Amino acid sequence: MRRALAASDVVHGTTSPNPSVGAVVLDRDGRIVGVGATAPPGGAHAEVAALADAGDRAAGGTVVVTLEPCNHHGRTPPCVDALLAAGVVRVHAAVADPTPRAGGGLARLRAAGVEVTLGTLAEEVARGPLRGWLHRQHTGRPHVTWKVATTLDGRVAAADGTSRWITGETARAEVHDLRRRMDAIVAGTGTVLADDPALTARRPDGTLLGHQPLRVVVGHRDIPPGARLTDTDCAGTVHLRTRDPDEVLDDLARRGAVDVLLEGGPTLAGAFVAAGAVDRVLVHLAPALLGAGPHALGEAGVGTIADIVRLHVDEVRRAGADVVLDARPVTQDGPETRHGSDTQHGSDTQHGSDTQHGPGTPVG
Amino acid sequence: MRRALAASDVVHGTTSPNPSVGAVVLDRDGRIVGVGATAPPGGAHAEVAALADAGDRAAGGTVVVTLEPCNHHGRTPPCVDALLAAGVVRVHAAVADPTPRAGGGLARLRAAGVEVTLGTLAEEVARGPLRGWLHRQHTGRPHVTWKVATTLDGRVAAADGTSRWITGETARAEVHDLRRRMDAIVAGTGTVLADDPALTARRPDGTLLGHQPLRVVVGHRDIPPGARLTDTDCAGTVHLRTRDPDEVLDDLARRGAVDVLLEGGPTLAGAFVAAGAVDRVLVHLAPALLGAGPHALGEAGVGTIADIVRLHVDEVRRAGADVVLDARPVTQDGPETRHGSDTQHGSDTQHGSDTQHGPGTPVG
Repeated sequence: MRRALAASDVVHGTTSPNPSVGAVVLDRDGRIVGVGATAPPGGAHAEVAALADAGDRAAGGTVVVTLEPCNHHGRTPPCVDALLAAGVVRVHAAVADPTPRAGGGLARLRAAGVEVTLGTLAEEVARGPLRGWLHRQHTGRPHVTWKVATTLDGRVAAADGTSRWITGETARAEVHDLRRRMDAIVAGTGTVLADDPALTARRPDGTLLGHQPLRVVVGHRDIPPGARLTDTDCAGTVHLRTRDPDEVLDDLARRGAVDVLLEGGPTLAGAFVAAGAVDRVLVHLAPALLGAGPHALGEAGVGTIADIVRLHVDEVRRAGADVVLDARPVTQDGPETRHGSDTQHGSDTQHGSDTQHGPGTPVG
Repeated sequence: MRRALAASDVVHGTTSPNPSVGAVVLDRDGRIVGVGATAPPGGAHAEVAALADAGDRAAGGTVVVTLEPCNHHGRTPPCVDALLAAGVVRVHAAVADPTPRAGGGLARLRAAGVEVTLGTLAEEVARGPLRGWLHRQHTGRPHVTWKVATTLDGRVAAADGTSRWITGETARAEVHDLRRRMDAIVAGTGTVLADDPALTARRPDGTLLGHQPLRVVVGHRDIPPGARLTDTDCAGTVHLRTRDPDEVLDDLARRGAVDVLLEGGPTLAGAFVAAGAVDRVLVHLAPALLGAGPHALGEAGVGTIADIVRLHVDEVRRAGADVVLDARPVTQDGPETRHGSDTQHGSDTQHGSDTQHGPGTPVG
C-alpha cells in the first residue's frame, strides 16, 4: 500500500476533479509486477494503468489500491470489470469510496469471488492525496488549506513591509511542493499589490515544477499590468471581483477544483476563517521575533475568548530551522472527520460506492 | 547521574544565589547508598548531604554529582575535603564549575588519587537546573526566561481583552511548575492593572507550591491597593519604578536572583527583547485563532526584516492540546553557549574552579 500511496502522491494535483489514486499489482507469488496512478481526466484509472503495466502476470494475483475500485461507466469503463477480466483474486483497498453514483465496487468484487479488504493505511491515505477529494465528496466544495509563514509573535512581515525571508529554504521548498498538488492558489489583491507574488510551484533553482495550479486573485482592485502572476507562460490566472469566500469557493467548485491553497493576506484569511471556509491550517513558524508589522490573521469575527477558533494539531514537525504545525478546525464533534461515509454530494467523479464501511473495517 | 539530576531539580529555585546541585553516593559494590541536593544558602552542599546520607558506606565508593565539587571555603568547607575524608575513590561530575574563586575541585581530587570524569549528561544538566546559574557566572546577570501563551496568530487575548484561557490545563500547570523554580517573576504595571495576576506558583487545585518566587512589578504606574499580588501571605512583592531592563536586572542581581521569569506584557517583553535581555523564549502555543486582540510581543526595535531577532529552537513538544516551543536567541556564534568556561564574573557562590575542561571531556 505504501507503494500505491507514493504513486498516487506523484499525480496529486493533476487528476481533479477525479481523485489521485495509486495501485500496485502483485503476481500470484507476491512480486510487484505493475504500478499505476490516475491519469488526467478522461485517461486511465490507477487500477487499469497498473493492470496494463502487469499484463497477463496479474492473473491469480493481488491488486492493492488507495481507493475502492469504481463500479460505474463514467468517461472510462468500471475498474471492477477490468479487475475481474484480469483474473485478480485479491483486492486490498485503503479508503472506501463515499460517492453514491458508482455503487459498491468491493461488494461486487466479493460477490464475484474475489477476496477483498478495506482499511490498510486508511488514515495516511485519507490525510494525504485523497483528503481534498474526500472533503469535496462530503461537502460539495473544494478543500481549503490556509498556509501562512509567521514569526513566533504572529507577524508575517516587518514594520516596513519587508518579509523575505521569514522562514528558511526547507520550509519554502515545502510550500512549492504543496503548490504543485493544488488545483488553485488564492490570494487577495492586497497581497498582489504589496508583494507581486508569482504564485507558481517552483524548484529551489527557480524552474517550474510540472503541474501549475490556477492562480486566483480575489478582490475588487485591479491587478496591475505587468504583475508577475499575469505571466501566462506558466499558469493561468483568474480574477474574482468579490471578497466573499462562499462565492470564491462556488466558482472554484464549478471549475472542478478539489484542493485550494489560500496564501494571503491577513484580511482574506480572516474572511475565510470567519466563514468557516478553512479546512486545514498549515503554519510555517519561524523561530524569530519582530514585535511589529502585519499580523498573520486579520479580523475573523472573534470578539471574545469564548468565540476563539480552536484547532486540532495533526502534526508538529521541524523543517530546517522552522517548525511546521499542521492543524484543522475543531468541529462540535471533534476535529473535522476525515473519511467518506454517506453524504449525498457527488461531483464529476468516476469513483463511487454506497457501502457504509469505514476505513479499518475488514470486508468479506 | 539521572538520579542526581532529579535530586537537583527538586531544589531548583530554593538555592540561589548558589547552584541547585544533586549528588548520589554509590558504595564499593555500586549500590546507591546516599542521595543529596543543595540546601538553601548556608546549608550543606549536595555532596556533603549525600555523604551524610551514606555514612560510612561511602568509603571505597563513587560520588556522582551534577557540578564539579567545590574546592574553597565559603559559608561551608570545601566539598573536596569531605569527599577525601569519606574515602571516595571515584567522582563523576556532569558540568565543570566555571567560577574562578574556588579552584579546580576535580584536579585536586585527581591529584589525591581519586578517579574523576567530567561530562556525563552535561547537556541535560546545563540546559536544566544549572542553566540559570551558569548564565549568571558568565554574564554577572540573572537568566531571563520570557514565557508567553499565544494563539497561532500571535494574540495573547481577544479583542475585548479576555484571555482565560488561551492554553489548556496541561500547559498552565507547566507554568506553575516553572514558577516554583524561579527566583523572581517580572510583570509590567499594565499587566497588573489589566489582569490582576497573583503571580504565585500553584498546584492545579489552587494551593501554593512550596517555593514562591519574588514578584516584581515594573513600571511607573502605582499598583492598585488590593491587587492580588500585594497579598503578602504567600510571597514577597517589589515594585521597581523603571521600565529599563538593565536597571531591573541589576536590581535583581543584587538581590541574588539567578532565574527570572518575564511574564508580561507585550510592551515590557518588547523592551527586554530590544535590550538583548531575554535568554530563553518559552512559547505556549495554543492551536487556536483570534484574528484580533493584543499581540504576544510589542515594539522590540525591529524595523525591517534584516533586523529580525532569530531564535534557535531547543525543543518542540506537545503539552495537552497545546504546543510548547523552547528557544533561545541566536548569537553571532550560533545559539548562546550553554556551558561554563573562563569568564571572570563571580558572584556569591560556593562553587568554583579555574579548569578549562568543557563538558564531555574526560579528566584523569
